[in-house]
Amino acid sequence: MKVSSYSQGNWITTGNESDLISAVTGKTVGTLIEADLDYKSMCEYARTVGGPKLRKMSIHERAFKIKYLAKYLLDRKKKYYEISTHTGATKRDSWIDIDGGIITAFGISSQARQNLSDLPWHVEGKQVRLSRKGTFTGQHICVPRHGVAVQINAFNFPVWNMLEKLAPSFISGMPSIIKPSPLGSYLAFEVFKDIIESGILPEGSVQFIAADKPGDIFDYLTSQDSVDFTGSAETGRKLKSHPNIVANNVRFNMEADSLNCSILGPDVSSDMPEFDLFIKEVANEMTVKTGQKCTAIRRVIVPMGKSDEVIEALKERLSEVVIGDPVDVNTKMGPLASSLQAKRFEDKLQKLEEVTDSVYQYQNSDLKNAYTKARILQCHKPLEIDEVHTVEAFGPMTTIMPYSTIDEAIKIANKADGSLVGSLFTADGEIAQKITLGCAPYHGRFMIMNRDSAEESTGHGSPIASLVHGGPGRAGGGEELGGARAVLHHMQRVALQGSPTTLMNITGQHISGANTKESDTHPFKKYFEELEVGESLTTEKRTITNEDITEFADLTGDHFYAHADDESAKESLFGERVAHGYLVLSITAGLFVHPDPGPVLLNYGLEDLRFTAPVAPGDTIQAKLIVKRKTVRQQRKDDEHPFGMVWWDVEVTNQENDLVAEYTILTLVKRKDRLDIDL
Amino acid sequence: MKVSSYSQGNWITTGNESDLISAVTGKTVGTLIEADLDYKSMCEYARTVGGPKLRKMSIHERAFKIKYLAKYLLDRKKKYYEISTHTGATKRDSWIDIDGGIITAFGISSQARQNLSDLPWHVEGKQVRLSRKGTFTGQHICVPRHGVAVQINAFNFPVWNMLEKLAPSFISGMPSIIKPSPLGSYLAFEVFKDIIESGILPEGSVQFIAADKPGDIFDYLTSQDSVDFTGSAETGRKLKSHPNIVANNVRFNMEADSLNCSILGPDVSSDMPEFDLFIKEVANEMTVKTGQKCTAIRRVIVPMGKSDEVIEALKERLSEVVIGDPVDVNTKMGPLASSLQAKRFEDKLQKLEEVTDSVYQYQNSDLKNAYTKARILQCHKPLEIDEVHTVEAFGPMTTIMPYSTIDEAIKIANKADGSLVGSLFTADGEIAQKITLGCAPYHGRFMIMNRDSAEESTGHGSPIASLVHGGPGRAGGGEELGGARAVLHHMQRVALQGSPTTLMNITGQHISGANTKESDTHPFKKYFEELEVGESLTTEKRTITNEDITEFADLTGDHFYAHADDESAKESLFGERVAHGYLVLSITAGLFVHPDPGPVLLNYGLEDLRFTAPVAPGDTIQAKLIVKRKTVRQQRKDDEHPFGMVWWDVEVTNQENDLVAEYTILTLVKRKDRLDIDL
Repeated sequence: MKVSSYSQGNWITTGNESDLISAVTGKTVGTLIEADLDYKSMCEYARTVGGPKLRKMSIHERAFKIKYLAKYLLDRKKKYYEISTHTGATKRDSWIDIDGGIITAFGISSQARQNLSDLPWHVEGKQVRLSRKGTFTGQHICVPRHGVAVQINAFNFPVWNMLEKLAPSFISGMPSIIKPSPLGSYLAFEVFKDIIESGILPEGSVQFIAADKPGDIFDYLTSQDSVDFTGSAETGRKLKSHPNIVANNVRFNMEADSLNCSILGPDVSSDMPEFDLFIKEVANEMTVKTGQKCTAIRRVIVPMGKSDEVIEALKERLSEVVIGDPVDVNTKMGPLASSLQAKRFEDKLQKLEEVTDSVYQYQNSDLKNAYTKARILQCHKPLEIDEVHTVEAFGPMTTIMPYSTIDEAIKIANKADGSLVGSLFTADGEIAQKITLGCAPYHGRFMIMNRDSAEESTGHGSPIASLVHGGPGRAGGGEELGGARAVLHHMQRVALQGSPTTLMNITGQHISGANTKESDTHPFKKYFEELEVGESLTTEKRTITNEDITEFADLTGDHFYAHADDESAKESLFGERVAHGYLVLSITAGLFVHPDPGPVLLNYGLEDLRFTAPVAPGDTIQAKLIVKRKTVRQQRKDDEHPFGMVWWDVEVTNQENDLVAEYTILTLVKRKDRLDIDL
Repeated sequence: MKVSSYSQGNWITTGNESDLISAVTGKTVGTLIEADLDYKSMCEYARTVGGPKLRKMSIHERAFKIKYLAKYLLDRKKKYYEISTHTGATKRDSWIDIDGGIITAFGISSQARQNLSDLPWHVEGKQVRLSRKGTFTGQHICVPRHGVAVQINAFNFPVWNMLEKLAPSFISGMPSIIKPSPLGSYLAFEVFKDIIESGILPEGSVQFIAADKPGDIFDYLTSQDSVDFTGSAETGRKLKSHPNIVANNVRFNMEADSLNCSILGPDVSSDMPEFDLFIKEVANEMTVKTGQKCTAIRRVIVPMGKSDEVIEALKERLSEVVIGDPVDVNTKMGPLASSLQAKRFEDKLQKLEEVTDSVYQYQNSDLKNAYTKARILQCHKPLEIDEVHTVEAFGPMTTIMPYSTIDEAIKIANKADGSLVGSLFTADGEIAQKITLGCAPYHGRFMIMNRDSAEESTGHGSPIASLVHGGPGRAGGGEELGGARAVLHHMQRVALQGSPTTLMNITGQHISGANTKESDTHPFKKYFEELEVGESLTTEKRTITNEDITEFADLTGDHFYAHADDESAKESLFGERVAHGYLVLSITAGLFVHPDPGPVLLNYGLEDLRFTAPVAPGDTIQAKLIVKRKTVRQQRKDDEHPFGMVWWDVEVTNQENDLVAEYTILTLVKRKDRLDIDL
């Protein structure tokens, strides 16, 4: 396989050639073609060809493209699994990389569609009140930046790392230039080739750099661009302080390997399920991906006096791990990613062995090519010895560290000065709180495990699309993923100020106080496409009577004293009988609902309801219903009338024109026509 | 006045002395005492003395302290106004700095109490679903970091800059070390002295550096610390790339002066109100604070052919500006902050004058000490001449730039490569949208002004506590303020994973699926203090009948076909008659409400309601009400029973135990006792 660059719409198939080596056999599996790329033009191409195409689509359209792409790659995953074995990955390892990457792309797409606007930009959070009369108001929006996202990926997860970065930046509206590690680049390349062949992503939205190092691309980055880096802390720091990155305040997100820990709670004895779960997790994190995970457990923090039990149990568990050829289904641990990685691992281990006791070495195959042994070290004075918290041997190893008190456990955990993830095994709620909150400022993710959560747990090592990934200090100080937040990281947040109508015109979403346009027909009779943001229905008026309130109380059983009669209600905050809030809501619905079948099918939710003033018997209420925002829903192949979702602002006023209630209702509305594409 | 440092709980009153000069008279107004400070110990003191005290308080308690502090300073503002004149500030300038700073502290306090948890940490966003059965779940929390916030402030707003940084970091739970600019440090010092004297903030939570430069403090910063810098882009870049900042991934937020612009829309002719508003705003931004504002309008972008009209109108307006002694009430513009600043201003102006036409110089007083003239330049080819977008003369000046098309206006605006704020004057909604979205990626804030919003506008130049402040690129790439977001910037976001009960134990907030504890008495009979998170009420059951639905339809007037009868409902999504969602809500309230007076006074709101399954006649529903979270409300002096707010999760199920509705209700609940302190 020839691993070549994709630049400005073309495959660049000539350049310096070097061999790509299988971690398993030590033989050549492909050729890396390093072309003399024009990085400046590649960046400009992304900004001028890819960017404008992306910004024409809505966030939902971009998210749907990522969904189709994920589906397209899923259909081809068998091929990727085959190639993946050359990186040393077992089937389980490949699942994390390949299925894990595709699931992450699906997840980010789904989170974006659930939480972000169906517009090219996102209207973020609530309107901000800035003035008494409301003629001057504020609204934050997040807009696509006019730059390119340069993505520098690590060698250990060629597919996951590429997709978890590409999906959010694409959905944000930014084109990407992807630079994989040469190690495993043949796998990243195969997936990237399919991305291009699928034709799903618009031209200019992705380019690919086949190279050892990213060349001088950093010299051409501007303030609208960004760099997302995954890799070693050392390389990250170097790239981050590149003069051009500093001079232009280029956004730089770093995800660095950290010395993550797992803590065994002081309450856990070896006969408790939490003990076995702990041993299983540690052994797992040591051997999955042959320990080459930025989230692997490098430090095992155990109660003083329990080290021996933990070590014995770990030994037993590790001795069952079959080390061998990843192609063999029985293999649980393959080789490291390359002979060079194996050497680096040994060098770092040597440093650690100088300050620790080596308590276990495990192997059950010949150590040729990139294969290595699993190792357990022990450090008796973890608060005094710094190296065990700073030197990372990137392979199947961990160091056992004892603690005497909970405070000491926290101190040891935090001594790594920032981790992507930590975990704690305990059956005690108070211990869980104390240790978790003690460790939290030093972690991006923290997993607390016990017998109740074990069955469905996704494990210490797995970043999840809907949760943030990243950590402070040593871990890089960055933040990725975390649901829709992953997309917003790539956008520019802007605070808009102006009249409500102006802000509605700009944002494409109704802003309280903006001009509305009374609907010509009842809006419940209109299809999704026909409903316009700012379109309104002003209802008839209705006077609430004592009888209404009594009847409602009898029907619902809600005899709260404030609604019973003036006498009982004297003690209430209002000092007189008032209508139930739910009666006001229900009568309002009666005022705005059209009884006959129509495109508006269903009110399935309600948000941000506030009862702002009481309604007393004799008060006359009226409601105004305004189309606030709309989003297209996915349509199935056989949907003749697919759906959309429409949010309506409801304002209920009394005879004095005072607001008595305001809220947003969510409705499912039929489309008149199918969409051109199958969303 | 002797401006001295406050280090580790002590005033350091000896050190190198240098004169602080009045911008108005050129005479000495105070002495700066630069002591030989032990920065390492100051940082450690903040981390070990201030930090732990702050972290024991809840976010609301910290926010209330900031509120009292703001009140305390407000009572003393007369003194600050007097001192402020020495900086060259007119009364209007001082208002922005002094009242503006205090209002910002009030604002951040209020936003934090409205939007963040009443716990030492914040439980952020919704619970994250991670598993099918729900035994393993996720929740983001934001926790105080264990470090110190180093705040490096600019000379132009000694009070505002100090308070807008101190308020959010204090509320986040982080101690601060404040380093003002020596220019105007006597004003910052006076306010800081009152902060200490007030005794409101706990010892160790604030320290103060009286010095020209921040010394070697950066050498001691760790990954838990942060730097918030306001000042020139050049200094900011230098500090940001300090080796220790890079090595430890110290959070660094930069707010740099940028070449902000204001655009006159192509639709605006000189007889429209928008034209006058534009002239007024530009003249205002040129002269307020003698043009020494990071948000000042340095570039005035006008339709080709309208430059002369704009210049003439600006000249006329500027000629009415009285330049003089700030103490004089008629004075509209004082001197620059120092003679050195005046020289710097002239130097930069000279550079600009080499590439532009100088069209106006205005003065009406002698130019001694730090006084200067107001200047208008004109650049006929703004797309070709870079200097007008990169060289900032920090004083009362602006450059007029013509554009021929909307796209050209956007290009010119964005050529400054990142601004804190831009503005646009137009009466046309489409133009507003096109220009605003075109400029948005390059701006942190964008104000769109017309006749409707003018009366209540807070102006181009004013950052607002509830809106983000900061901008990409040249403006520093940072983000401050923005409501509760201002506080969260200082906290560490951590993704927690575990069983719902474990996460409830850790977060102190009910998590769906967590163990609940059935209340011994009806929870509506309990006071605020007596209600515990996770405490629940399981109601009786009630079967919904056809009669219920008919009666409800008749009472409310909601005769939607899906609720009418089976025949009409055939066409609905459910294919049979179902109960109104609002009937389910109302009957649920009937099931959980206690009719008699009690501490639960009022249900004033409802959030995140979803109807998850239909309820048909014959279905039997039951509800479970669970205390989700609580927040203390401010108590007035005469409140015998002050209030708290309690959020309740409501889960409504049917006879199959399927969820039919879920939502959160907000109630106002009496406290049994007054709080020790007047919140």
